[in-house]
Amino acid sequence: MKGFRFSAVEAAIKKPGRLDLALIFSDLPAYVAAVYTTNKVQAAPVIISRARSHNGSCRALLVNSGNANACTGEQGMADALECGRNTAEALGLSDEELLIASTGVIGQPLPMERFRKGIQPLVDGLDQGTLDHVAQAIMTTDTFPKIERRKGEAGGKSYSIWGIAKGAGMIQPNMATMLSFLVTDAAVDKAFLRRAFTEAVDGSFNAITVDGDTSTNDTALIFANGAAGNPRIEGGTPEGNAFLALLHDVLLSLAKLIVKDGEGATKFVEVRVKGAADNADAKKGALAIANSLLVKTAFFGQDANWGRIICALGYSGARVEQERVQISFDDVVMATGGVFAGGDAEAAGTRVLQQKEFTVSVDLKIGSGEAAVYTSDLSYDYVKINADYRT
Amino acid sequence: MKGFRFSAVEAAIKKPGRLDLALIFSDLPAYVAAVYTTNKVQAAPVIISRARSHNGSCRALLVNSGNANACTGEQGMADALECGRNTAEALGLSDEELLIASTGVIGQPLPMERFRKGIQPLVDGLDQGTLDHVAQAIMTTDTFPKIERRKGEAGGKSYSIWGIAKGAGMIQPNMATMLSFLVTDAAVDKAFLRRAFTEAVDGSFNAITVDGDTSTNDTALIFANGAAGNPRIEGGTPEGNAFLALLHDVLLSLAKLIVKDGEGATKFVEVRVKGAADNADAKKGALAIANSLLVKTAFFGQDANWGRIICALGYSGARVEQERVQISFDDVVMATGGVFAGGDAEAAGTRVLQQKEFTVSVDLKIGSGEAAVYTSDLSYDYVKINADYRT
Repeated sequence: MKGFRFSAVEAAIKKPGRLDLALIFSDLPAYVAAVYTTNKVQAAPVIISRARSHNGSCRALLVNSGNANACTGEQGMADALECGRNTAEALGLSDEELLIASTGVIGQPLPMERFRKGIQPLVDGLDQGTLDHVAQAIMTTDTFPKIERRKGEAGGKSYSIWGIAKGAGMIQPNMATMLSFLVTDAAVDKAFLRRAFTEAVDGSFNAITVDGDTSTNDTALIFANGAAGNPRIEGGTPEGNAFLALLHDVLLSLAKLIVKDGEGATKFVEVRVKGAADNADAKKGALAIANSLLVKTAFFGQDANWGRIICALGYSGARVEQERVQISFDDVVMATGGVFAGGDAEAAGTRVLQQKEFTVSVDLKIGSGEAAVYTSDLSYDYVKINADYRT
Repeated sequence: MKGFRFSAVEAAIKKPGRLDLALIFSDLPAYVAAVYTTNKVQAAPVIISRARSHNGSCRALLVNSGNANACTGEQGMADALECGRNTAEALGLSDEELLIASTGVIGQPLPMERFRKGIQPLVDGLDQGTLDHVAQAIMTTDTFPKIERRKGEAGGKSYSIWGIAKGAGMIQPNMATMLSFLVTDAAVDKAFLRRAFTEAVDGSFNAITVDGDTSTNDTALIFANGAAGNPRIEGGTPEGNAFLALLHDVLLSLAKLIVKDGEGATKFVEVRVKGAADNADAKKGALAIANSLLVKTAFFGQDANWGRIICALGYSGARVEQERVQISFDDVVMATGGVFAGGDAEAAGTRVLQQKEFTVSVDLKIGSGEAAVYTSDLSYDYVKINADYRT
C-alpha cells in the first residue's frame, strides 16, 4: 500500500499486556468518507470526527480500545480534544486533519496520563508498524483480528484497498462499538468516494445484526490518498463500478467476519427476503427474522421452526400476505402458500440447520423487492458473556 | 360471579394428562370487547373471533391449548369453523354468538377427532367447572395458572370482574400467544366497555415485554352480561371511572404475573421513563430499554450497567439530549446530566439489582411525557427453553 503508514503501542488504557492505541497516517493529503452511529447518544470522538471529516479531507486517525469515552460529558470532550491536539502536533498536522475513534467501557473518564505517555512512541513507531498491528489494537472482546486486502486496476495502474474492523453493533456491550477503517492508494473523485462508501456500507455493515443494539461509537471510514498514481476514478464509469464492487467486497467480507466472531455465535446465517413490495419492506422482514430471539434460539437449537420465521415476518411492518409466503432453509422448502410444505421437509430442514452456515430464504410473492442480512444464533454463551462482562 | 358458567376437559390435543379444552358461557346475552394481535400473520381463530366480536355481543368462548391453528391455511379455517359450529349447536347458540381462541404449536393441523370427542363433555361440564379450571386449561409453558378477582359497586349493587391469562407475547414460541379472558356481571354501556377495555389493555398487556416478539394468536377479551342488576355503568361518571380503575387493576395484575412467569425470568423490572417530549416518546424509550438484550443480560448478571441503558435510549427513536439524562435504579441515582453520578452509586446500584424486583427510572428532562413498562431479565434458561422446545 503506497503512502500509508501504521503504528500501534501498548498504552495500558484498560489493562496492560496488549496493543490498545493505534495510528493510521497518510503521507499525502487524502480524501475521507465516513459513516457514524445514528444513536442520539454519541461519544466525544464521534462528535469530533464527524465535524472534521465533513469537508472530505484528512490525514490521520488516532484510535484506542479499552475506553469508549462515551457519556463522559464536558471532561470527555476536553480529553478527546487534548489527545487529538498532542497527536496532530507530533505529526506536524493541524488539529482538523486528524480523526479520533474510541471503543471500550462507557461512562468512565479516559486515563489521560497513560494516553499522554503513549502518543510520542506511537508517532515514532510509524515506520515499523503494519495494518495488522492496528487491527489487533482495536480488538475488545473480538477473538481474532479482522483484516481484508484487495487489489484493483485503473488506467493501467494497480491500486489496493485494505480494511480492518472490530465488534458488531452493540455485540460488545460496554466494550461497545463496531469500528472499521479502510485505506486505499487509489485516486478517487471526492464526491464519488462518499457515494460509493455510503452505498457499500449500506449493503454490508448495515446488513448485519447480532443483537439489534446500536452503539454510541460506531464508525466506519476510508482514506483515499491517490498514491497509486492512477487517473482519478469517477462514478458511472467502468473503473468506478469496479472500485465500488471491490469496496463492497472488502466491507462485506469484514462484516461477515464480525458476525462469525459474534459473542457466543455458533451459526452464521444469511437471511434473504425477495418478492417484497419494495427493497425497504424486504429489509424490514429480513431484520425482523434476524433479530427475533425466538428465531435465533431456534437456530442455536437446530430446530427447523419455520413458524417463528413467518411470525416474525408478520410483525415486521412489511407487507405480508400469509397465504403467499414461501420459506426455505438452503434448498429445502419448509413452507409454501403460508403452510407447512409436508413431505420430509422437517427432517431435511433440520439437517440444514445442523450446518455451521446456512441460508434462510423467504419469498413474499408480492413484488420485486429484495434484501439480504447476515446474523448469528443466540446461545448460552451470549448471555454468559454479556451477564458476566464487568465482573 | 352471576350468570357465567365454566368448563374444562382433557381432550389430549397435544398430549394426554391435562385440561386443554375449555368453555366460558354466559347465561344471558353479553356485551363483548376484544383486542387481537397486530401481527399480519393471524391464526384462523383470531380471524373468526375478530369478525364475530365486531358487533359487540356474544355468549360464549371456546378455547384450546396444545395447537395454535396458525399457518394452517384453508383446512385450519374449516376446522375452526366446524369446532365452533359443533359447540354452538350443543349450547343452543347461533355460530356468531361463539368466539374461538387457540394457543400452541404453529403450522400443524388441529387433531379434529379429539376435538370432536371433547365438545359434548365440555358442554355437559358447565355446571361443575370453575374459572380456575379454564385458567389451567389454557396454560402452555406457564408454570402456574394466572387468575385475578376484584369486586366493585355501582348504584348499591355489587359486581365482580374476574380475569385469567397465559403466556406473554411470543414468550411461548411455538406454544405461541398471550391470551386473557375476563368476565364481569356488571351492566356496562356497550361503547364505554369497548373504550375502557382498549384503554386498560394499553396500560397493562401493551406495557409488558419479554422478548419483543408478537404472536399470531394474541387475544384479550371481556364479556359483560349485566347479571349483577346494577344501573348501567356509563363513561365519564364516578361509577365508570371506578369500573375502569378496577378493570385496569385486574389486567395489570395479570400482566405482571405473565412477566414473573416469563421463560427463565429471575428478575421483575419496572422501567419508568418521564420528562419525555410526549407519552409516545416515553414509551419508545422504555420499550427500547426493556427489549435490549444487553440491558436484560445485565439485569441477569446484576451488573449496574447504566451505559447500556443510555445507549438503548439513544437508539430508541425518542428525543434524547444526552447531557440531560438521569438514570436511577430504585432510589439510587446512577447517572445525572448524562454522566456517571459518582460516589458509591456503583455499589449501591449493584445492591438494587441483587433484588428480585426493582425499578429503573429515567428522566429525560425535556417535557412531561411519561410511560411505564414491565419486563424480565434474559437468562441462560430463556435460551435453553427456546432452543430445546420442540426436542
